[in-house]
Amino acid sequence: MKDQTDIAALMAEIGARARAAAAELAVADPATKRRALEAAADAVWQGRESILTANAEDLALGRDKGLSAAMMDRLALDEARITAMVEGLRAVAAQEDPVGEVLAEWDQPSGIHIRRVRTPLGVIGVIYESRPNVTADAGALCLKSGNAVILRGGSESFHSSGAIHACLVEGLRAAGLPEDAIQRVPTRDRAAVQEMLTMTDTIDVIVPRGGKGLVGLVQREARVPVFAHLEGIVHIYLDAAADPEKALRVVLNAKTRRTGICGAAECLLIHRDLVETLGQGVIRALIDAGVEVRADEALSGIDGTVPASPEDWGCEYLDSIIAAKVVDDIDGAIAHIRRYGSSHTDCIVTEDDAAAGAFFARLDSAILMRNASTQFADGGEFGMGAEIGIATGKMHARGPVGAAQLTSFKYLVEGDGATRA
Amino acid sequence: MKDQTDIAALMAEIGARARAAAAELAVADPATKRRALEAAADAVWQGRESILTANAEDLALGRDKGLSAAMMDRLALDEARITAMVEGLRAVAAQEDPVGEVLAEWDQPSGIHIRRVRTPLGVIGVIYESRPNVTADAGALCLKSGNAVILRGGSESFHSSGAIHACLVEGLRAAGLPEDAIQRVPTRDRAAVQEMLTMTDTIDVIVPRGGKGLVGLVQREARVPVFAHLEGIVHIYLDAAADPEKALRVVLNAKTRRTGICGAAECLLIHRDLVETLGQGVIRALIDAGVEVRADEALSGIDGTVPASPEDWGCEYLDSIIAAKVVDDIDGAIAHIRRYGSSHTDCIVTEDDAAAGAFFARLDSAILMRNASTQFADGGEFGMGAEIGIATGKMHARGPVGAAQLTSFKYLVEGDGATRA
Repeated sequence: MKDQTDIAALMAEIGARARAAAAELAVADPATKRRALEAAADAVWQGRESILTANAEDLALGRDKGLSAAMMDRLALDEARITAMVEGLRAVAAQEDPVGEVLAEWDQPSGIHIRRVRTPLGVIGVIYESRPNVTADAGALCLKSGNAVILRGGSESFHSSGAIHACLVEGLRAAGLPEDAIQRVPTRDRAAVQEMLTMTDTIDVIVPRGGKGLVGLVQREARVPVFAHLEGIVHIYLDAAADPEKALRVVLNAKTRRTGICGAAECLLIHRDLVETLGQGVIRALIDAGVEVRADEALSGIDGTVPASPEDWGCEYLDSIIAAKVVDDIDGAIAHIRRYGSSHTDCIVTEDDAAAGAFFARLDSAILMRNASTQFADGGEFGMGAEIGIATGKMHARGPVGAAQLTSFKYLVEGDGATRA
Repeated sequence: MKDQTDIAALMAEIGARARAAAAELAVADPATKRRALEAAADAVWQGRESILTANAEDLALGRDKGLSAAMMDRLALDEARITAMVEGLRAVAAQEDPVGEVLAEWDQPSGIHIRRVRTPLGVIGVIYESRPNVTADAGALCLKSGNAVILRGGSESFHSSGAIHACLVEGLRAAGLPEDAIQRVPTRDRAAVQEMLTMTDTIDVIVPRGGKGLVGLVQREARVPVFAHLEGIVHIYLDAAADPEKALRVVLNAKTRRTGICGAAECLLIHRDLVETLGQGVIRALIDAGVEVRADEALSGIDGTVPASPEDWGCEYLDSIIAAKVVDDIDGAIAHIRRYGSSHTDCIVTEDDAAAGAFFARLDSAILMRNASTQFADGGEFGMGAEIGIATGKMHARGPVGAAQLTSFKYLVEGDGATRA
């Protein structure tokens, strides 16, 4: 399998199988897909012992390789995480089936009737790193949306992903759906990733899940369209008309609830009028909560802050650190976010509708928030049931990517012998 | 301007101006954009003499270069074509403004309120060949949808496009919108096209309009997303349950109304049971209408047909020619279309709802039709007012691409100090 030609042949074979399965899956009825997902959930639960054994094998290899504590944590499974996976599968099973939904419908004066209906995209390629649960989430969302999927997990989670994948296939089999609907790349060779990025004939979209290195590589080199975000450089702007209590609550939650997720706040922008009052209060509260605050000069008088350097603007810490800066007004905040943001999620705290309106109109992040924690940037919190990722591109999917975002549409036109004049 | 570096610098400059104009245009109010389009329509009408003079210059150069009659026809403007252009601009002006439309809106149990609103894509690049009217259509649709546009017309229509472009800029000026919102590449150097294809920082989407050579080049080499169709290999299947009168009407219109457009039928599939009856009748009617019918062996007994060769399956004639083939049943028709179609538009003629249902479900063309002429595959006929092209990809835009299809969306989330648990 180490040979480049072998990998190319292997991936072409997997691609062709996926394409064939996709044609069957596109017309599978909702009940059958639901049954497959429920059977997969059962299989994961019943197979939890063998999943944990496989995971122990990955963890042992990871220790030998000297993986970081954070990596080891992402890799590790326990009964609670398996329960979450099972619940995730059941939640996706219970969702409304997106395929076939009539998105719009109208008559034309020429006598034709037009319907726009949701269809699967076809074949999704998912390239991810160490989290083994992505296998279940991605497999479930693709199946729900009628897409075949090719899963390429990180080499660290190879055995865990394999065990979970086997349960998904059991679900497909139980429902009489093609097993090729959820395939897993059976090699750790990285050449398989390179292949996937250029399989434009058989893969319709690639979803990379992982660090900046992986996502950047995929965005740079893929010929297949990509749904992804490279970074979540999330800003919160405390407007002159911010409510102090809401500001405190939102900023603390946005920064400290979980620091390692893409919706975590990374930069606090403070209106000049608030420096001595609310600004000071929020920064003190962050410091009290154990956050390192890297402050610009105007805020440097606040006890316990660390001086910010130019690299702090536009930095994604994914850690208990936040940059803080004073801006003259909302224009200054918008200009800073335009320059340093990543079009992921940005928030304004204000009671002033005009300020919120300007923030919403003049910024073009995938998600803009007002008086709400940026940690809500998540498919589950948006009511999508689950997400395969968050996209910051402007094409097709944007924001949290759930089952509905993994679909396309087609026009169905009916006439009674209508001809064009 | 012939130097590669100069072209790169020129295009980078145009891209940066477009990006700046796009930010202004994104927040322009609907009335201002409408005023700009109406003023542009007035300017085209008042400037028709100078447009015709510029066109005469292009036509003279075209004659010297020995352009084909079809090319010369596409290039030529007259008062009727200018009137159509003016009416097109006014029709787009009168359309509903898509930007800011609330596409969905809901509350979450966490207390956040989510809106999904339409936003412009940003900057559209349009690369086209000889038709000068694309300048007006594309410019108008991009402006309506709040996008800046970079127009790169064919060298044959250089002077005509320049004169029309000047009128569009007059419209922008009259409404106080940035003139850079509609820019035209001021050189005929083809290196400018190559540049555009890789300007991922400043161009969000490329729309190529023209022949297979141009579209294929753009699809192969663009790093920027592309809305396009390479070919319209349009099939009509006469099902066993076809109504003879409708079949005759639909097939004749689909093939002969205009043979050079992408929605023109190129291949007729006939259910085996109909060969001696309706099949024969339709083929005879096509021949009587002056169409060359390239028939497979089962139809070769019909007087006046020409034997088809393997190259006729999947061929886009864009001419008064049609391929004709017998299939055993609807499965045969679907299999043929899957193999040879181009996912543009395909049609079934039948009175049998089950057959139509199978055709609609199992094929994944952008447009599927029943008992209606495939020449309806057009943004105007779909009620979109105008189109910048037809897309056969599955991502983002599909089918006719009008102003609404040139948009993206963002999520606006409002809370009252909501935090995530």
